[in-house]
Amino acid sequence: MGFGRAASSRAQPPMASSEPSWADIGRIWVPERFRCGASIASMSSLIHPARSSVIEEPLDPFSLVAEELSLIANRLRLMVDAEVPSLALAAKYFFKMGVEGKRFRPTVLLLMASALNISKPISASTGAPSSVSHKLRARQQCIAEIAEMIHVASLLHDDVLDDADKRRGIGSLNFVMGNKLAVLAGNFLLSRACIALASLNNTEVLTLIVTIIDNLITGEMMQMKSTSEQCNSMEYYMQKTYYKTASLFSNSCKSIAVLADQTEEVAELAYVYGQNLGLAYQLIDDVLDFTGTSASLGKGSLSDIRHGIVTAPILFAMEEFPQLRDVVKQGFHKPANVNVALDYLGKSRGIERAKELAAEHANRAIEAINSLPKTDTDEVLISRRALIDLTQRVVTRTQ
Amino acid sequence: MGFGRAASSRAQPPMASSEPSWADIGRIWVPERFRCGASIASMSSLIHPARSSVIEEPLDPFSLVAEELSLIANRLRLMVDAEVPSLALAAKYFFKMGVEGKRFRPTVLLLMASALNISKPISASTGAPSSVSHKLRARQQCIAEIAEMIHVASLLHDDVLDDADKRRGIGSLNFVMGNKLAVLAGNFLLSRACIALASLNNTEVLTLIVTIIDNLITGEMMQMKSTSEQCNSMEYYMQKTYYKTASLFSNSCKSIAVLADQTEEVAELAYVYGQNLGLAYQLIDDVLDFTGTSASLGKGSLSDIRHGIVTAPILFAMEEFPQLRDVVKQGFHKPANVNVALDYLGKSRGIERAKELAAEHANRAIEAINSLPKTDTDEVLISRRALIDLTQRVVTRTQ
Repeated sequence: MGFGRAASSRAQPPMASSEPSWADIGRIWVPERFRCGASIASMSSLIHPARSSVIEEPLDPFSLVAEELSLIANRLRLMVDAEVPSLALAAKYFFKMGVEGKRFRPTVLLLMASALNISKPISASTGAPSSVSHKLRARQQCIAEIAEMIHVASLLHDDVLDDADKRRGIGSLNFVMGNKLAVLAGNFLLSRACIALASLNNTEVLTLIVTIIDNLITGEMMQMKSTSEQCNSMEYYMQKTYYKTASLFSNSCKSIAVLADQTEEVAELAYVYGQNLGLAYQLIDDVLDFTGTSASLGKGSLSDIRHGIVTAPILFAMEEFPQLRDVVKQGFHKPANVNVALDYLGKSRGIERAKELAAEHANRAIEAINSLPKTDTDEVLISRRALIDLTQRVVTRTQ
Repeated sequence: MGFGRAASSRAQPPMASSEPSWADIGRIWVPERFRCGASIASMSSLIHPARSSVIEEPLDPFSLVAEELSLIANRLRLMVDAEVPSLALAAKYFFKMGVEGKRFRPTVLLLMASALNISKPISASTGAPSSVSHKLRARQQCIAEIAEMIHVASLLHDDVLDDADKRRGIGSLNFVMGNKLAVLAGNFLLSRACIALASLNNTEVLTLIVTIIDNLITGEMMQMKSTSEQCNSMEYYMQKTYYKTASLFSNSCKSIAVLADQTEEVAELAYVYGQNLGLAYQLIDDVLDFTGTSASLGKGSLSDIRHGIVTAPILFAMEEFPQLRDVVKQGFHKPANVNVALDYLGKSRGIERAKELAAEHANRAIEAINSLPKTDTDEVLISRRALIDLTQRVVTRTQ
């Protein structure tokens, strides 16, 4: 099986000869998996694959899978509606909000399924490749549904975890019902995800997906219970970010490859793509929490720092202005401290360096796609280009 | 494979020729599974198996598996302690409380494992039955751990769902942290349960256990969102009770049999035992909520009715005094309504009929044990007697 042009670098430890950077931190907290990541190349050299006929067509990653996305959205709504009518309200809340990234995860996973649609074995018994391929696609769609259910479940539970104090002004019954619904609806979605998972009957995929759920909890716990020292640690922040955001991308992308019976190498490339896409996504999210407006962010601007959550821009600013550590230590209950931190951030390269780190991870994600086995199939090439395009959108978005 | 003396009745629909009773309700809401339940026989005829040498020894079901129980408890504590230290508090809260039934589920499951320790195939390749048997036992212990984790997770989430209003007098941070910890600790346990489940690598068991989680949520939702008509329905109550309590027993008992590679018939008998034990357990719990004292119940007496939860004794009382429906419809926000309901209950046969229904289900559970394949092995016979003894304790307990 032939690999793309980045393949030769895969035998060496990534970045072994280059200067250490924060992107290297990734290797510390997910050491095994990170080893197969390709070395960093400049973005411009990566977004121009050889076949110009494919790249010159205008491309919208979301429209490539629009039909399947609506199929998946309908199935998810049906599941929620049919079983317990009261849960529909909670689920619809998140469907209606128009949150950025609402269909981002299923889009990535469906595109990954097409990007890996190579060397499909034809069933010897039935001699019906299209039916085999249809069955595989249905199983891969199931992963997209499961990932979305887990994502929405984590949003529902975050509502209880993060916003409980905001609701205290509301009447007692509503407050309690809000928590009840959020917890039960989250549990309900997780349980439905597990049932769907059981139906796939694949132990490796089961383990990968359950790892996502476990990581989400660990990440939330790390955020909730961090010591002052941990709050100042870039390594801790990256580990938490992997658990809370990137694990869902990495493990579900790998699941798509596992279901397709791809080699361990291809599965690891899918994992590395998801991992780095997820990290880049969250880093930009953290930047936008400072630079965006309330409307464009879809949540209150500066919401992280106001909740005492220290993210990459502030951590980088701390390196230039160590006195910022004391401000962070005091906490952000006082709005004055938020302003002090923002002053330091403005004077520092914090925002810039966080964006650079996001770009490094985006490059690693792109490199993983370019390291996939060679193919001449247009659909596969277009899907790979769409995954690269999505990655670029993630780091260049302004909302 | 030979079956016990109740086997002949299994071909007929249970209770087909007898008067309808509330025990029949069971067949409506879990129709498929209930079909293999044996007909009801009097308790006195069931608790005297033929082998007097076994039955005459004094027997304590809990001490039979004491060593394994402490092994399981240690493993569970280690899992909670090792991963996220902050969760230990939440988990220990439930370990410390000394709640009745704390080790009830693992006890039932370990005894079921021994009760089904029959016709074990010896590994042809290794010729080492003891090692095979040791491995099976370890897998069955894993089911006991998983069941306990799911049970404790549901207690932790119930804390958020039921007691949120009670905590409102406490400072904001504690309140929010209480909810946070309860939700996260519950999720953590569920996720650990799923990881343990994945390691068993058995799709049928996975589906059975995930069904428990799904049923727990559905049951909680049914309790939270019932209409006035549903509140007055015995069928609705029994269905909710199955989901909230009995499903854990039925599906985990069946899992024990599935892991042991028992026949579908034996697995169904294990299911029927768990199902009816669980129903009997909850019915008596609901009776004790009226008749017990606060101390002996481990929670405030009358707590169900004060939370507006209508259980079997009141439902039976309603049949004798239809005017009680109006009181239930008004709700129990006013303590006066609680007193009116208690007056009706006292005049009715509500408590008595709830106990009779519990006894009917206990008999069905005992019948299932007596219908298991014949054996001459003392350990197996003792374990079966212990399961019968446990069932009797469930319906005769006063706390």
